[in-house]
Amino acid sequence: MRKAEIPRGFRDFPPEVMRARIEVINKVRKVFERAGFPPMDTPSLEYWETLAGKYGPEAEERLIWRFKDPFSEKDYALRYDLTVPLARYIAQHPEIQLPFKRHQISLVWRHEEPQKGRYREFLQADIDTVGSPHIEADAEIINTIAMALEELGLDDYIIKVNHRGLLRDFIEKRFGGLSLSILRTIDKLDKIGEEGVKKELLRIGISEAQIDELMVKFERLKLEEVGETLIRLYGSEANQYKPIFETLSSLAYRKDKILFDFSLVRGLDYYTGIIFEAILTKGSPGSVSGGGRYDNLISLFKGEAVPATGGSLGIERIIDVMIERGILNLRKSIPGAFIIVLDEEAFMFGWRYLLELRKRGVIAEIDIMRRSLEKQKKRMNALNYKYAIYVGKKEMSSGSVTLVDRETGSRTEISVEDSFKLLEGEYKDEEAN
Amino acid sequence: MRKAEIPRGFRDFPPEVMRARIEVINKVRKVFERAGFPPMDTPSLEYWETLAGKYGPEAEERLIWRFKDPFSEKDYALRYDLTVPLARYIAQHPEIQLPFKRHQISLVWRHEEPQKGRYREFLQADIDTVGSPHIEADAEIINTIAMALEELGLDDYIIKVNHRGLLRDFIEKRFGGLSLSILRTIDKLDKIGEEGVKKELLRIGISEAQIDELMVKFERLKLEEVGETLIRLYGSEANQYKPIFETLSSLAYRKDKILFDFSLVRGLDYYTGIIFEAILTKGSPGSVSGGGRYDNLISLFKGEAVPATGGSLGIERIIDVMIERGILNLRKSIPGAFIIVLDEEAFMFGWRYLLELRKRGVIAEIDIMRRSLEKQKKRMNALNYKYAIYVGKKEMSSGSVTLVDRETGSRTEISVEDSFKLLEGEYKDEEAN
Repeated sequence: MRKAEIPRGFRDFPPEVMRARIEVINKVRKVFERAGFPPMDTPSLEYWETLAGKYGPEAEERLIWRFKDPFSEKDYALRYDLTVPLARYIAQHPEIQLPFKRHQISLVWRHEEPQKGRYREFLQADIDTVGSPHIEADAEIINTIAMALEELGLDDYIIKVNHRGLLRDFIEKRFGGLSLSILRTIDKLDKIGEEGVKKELLRIGISEAQIDELMVKFERLKLEEVGETLIRLYGSEANQYKPIFETLSSLAYRKDKILFDFSLVRGLDYYTGIIFEAILTKGSPGSVSGGGRYDNLISLFKGEAVPATGGSLGIERIIDVMIERGILNLRKSIPGAFIIVLDEEAFMFGWRYLLELRKRGVIAEIDIMRRSLEKQKKRMNALNYKYAIYVGKKEMSSGSVTLVDRETGSRTEISVEDSFKLLEGEYKDEEAN
Repeated sequence: MRKAEIPRGFRDFPPEVMRARIEVINKVRKVFERAGFPPMDTPSLEYWETLAGKYGPEAEERLIWRFKDPFSEKDYALRYDLTVPLARYIAQHPEIQLPFKRHQISLVWRHEEPQKGRYREFLQADIDTVGSPHIEADAEIINTIAMALEELGLDDYIIKVNHRGLLRDFIEKRFGGLSLSILRTIDKLDKIGEEGVKKELLRIGISEAQIDELMVKFERLKLEEVGETLIRLYGSEANQYKPIFETLSSLAYRKDKILFDFSLVRGLDYYTGIIFEAILTKGSPGSVSGGGRYDNLISLFKGEAVPATGGSLGIERIIDVMIERGILNLRKSIPGAFIIVLDEEAFMFGWRYLLELRKRGVIAEIDIMRRSLEKQKKRMNALNYKYAIYVGKKEMSSGSVTLVDRETGSRTEISVEDSFKLLEGEYKDEEAN
């Protein structure tokens, strides 16, 4: 006998959890579709060469699930994100009309050290627009992320934005070789706080005066204020960024929810323009979405520049938060009927009734073990069906069933035909939600 | 620059194909839910030891994607089917109340030589009932597969059934060491025909008389006739199988669609009782579903016997057939609105209108490139939206839009508010389908 063991850092999803996951995925898909981002998918595996050189050394040496295929000697890797496969797809299909918009909700794999909320296999939900250099494309990504969060009932979001060109101009240019360390330190603001950042900056050799200048920029600004503030701090060099944030403001679905944050860095990967991150403010706050413009990634495959921008919804964290907040209820009753057979002779009557319900689109269940009344009821309670339907000799002879709404406790004797109508109506209502 | 290349035997799914796939998956999920099989999921990877010894030597030596993790020296394998992971899950969770019913629609990986319709990564859609030794459980699997095929518009199915115990009793017992070769030969009936089977049986040393006796059983029988025919051929030994097929007949959702077929073998894996296979009869026929009872698999993990039965829907082949038959239309129009901006000054009016539509649940799109009228129309046509909505200076000042139903050609000037109502209603109708 073998020991049954799930791989470390991986998860099984039992029915009640999987139902909740599917509900969230379907909702997110619909919001993405509405915004003109249709679904697509790519393989779970890519050739290693496709991924190499895209994610930085830590990811490539430690986090990517990479392996050699013994039959072809080819190196494969499990998908690490959904952006590089998109770039590979675009480059491979020059016939695609740009701009190309799509969403993708798929698994990715990372060889992380497992801990609470961090797994080696998890879902990402991405939207991207390839082929538009315009700020409209970035604004649309941010707007769609905002709508998705609202649709999921997470209204306490704010979206921090920054611009990579601006970070480059104002930090990289000024501090040269130190800029990388400065950006990395600023990036930790959420984790170690302002004092922590100050201390680290001093340690790497930034003067008090310079730090004060940098720290001013850590206050979050309304989009309309960004241009003026930048010009005040940096002079005419900032002129080019003023219209970007003004346009972003006018295109915003909820500009009250978008704040400029100079401390937003978003790693040091492939971003080139607008970057953003959505956080929830209630309870334990944390990032639930991030993204930005990456105009150079696709050219790694295609040779020519292809502008692109996108965002990713942290769907696993979102599901956790929704369960924590009771927005997703894992114990809710099943909107259907459990058929209780009172006399053994009535089993076939109950079985036929069951098949007819299912054929009409109603969720319906019976105990397939032909067990005692007690055990049938126990199973119905465990599965938590909304309706109990009793069938016995009496019901058989009258062509009726006894229907109990288990939530209200109301009990009716009702003709078989009427019970179909009632339950079909019930089911359609559930569908519409 | 790197060459953009998808791994051999793997597929990208562009939006129109992915939409069709999601539609089918959602339909199948609903049919499974109705029959009391809720969704679950397991990881894409299992430890190699979990899969070892379950699928036979060909699968294990050649078809399973197996690899060593360089960090842990652990052997992993990509999921080969959805049944062994289920068995692992059940064994790992002794607290689960039996019978446990679930469906799972997930990817599996096989190191096949790629060819038309055969890929290295594909979806399986399984339903299983663990913990019931009763024929009701088998019948329910078969009934649910039948309902799923009907729901998908594939009414030309028939379901062949056989019983592993019966094959064991009547072939393995009689022919001893030859029985394996006989079963393998019979299994090829669909491929090589009756004459082909006869020739091969002669070659392996079965006498003409014995072949005639075996061949009688290749005629497909109605379930009610099975018992009598078996008793006629095999005498009282067949008594135990008569009630099994009679009960199966009485429990069948469509007994006119179920036929006994003695030539059905379904490989030589883990099946122990009733086995079945659904085929389509129109066009190029082929198996679209199969399954059966496997009472010994879970005990490999758990030590104690746990009866189980299940079925798998060949969802990839089904999608192909549905596209071939035009049941799935990859070119159908998008049930939403494309907003055409007539004057540049009207862009922000159009943009705000767009956001309001999306917020109300309507699929809506605008050209984010701010391009010429010509190019906007070209894009709308390429994406094939159902409605065109024109906004310009005139519409801005009157608070109305010009709405064109691109299918009927009808054109209306309509207030913004009325257009919301019209499109919201349209969208909800689509939802209900």
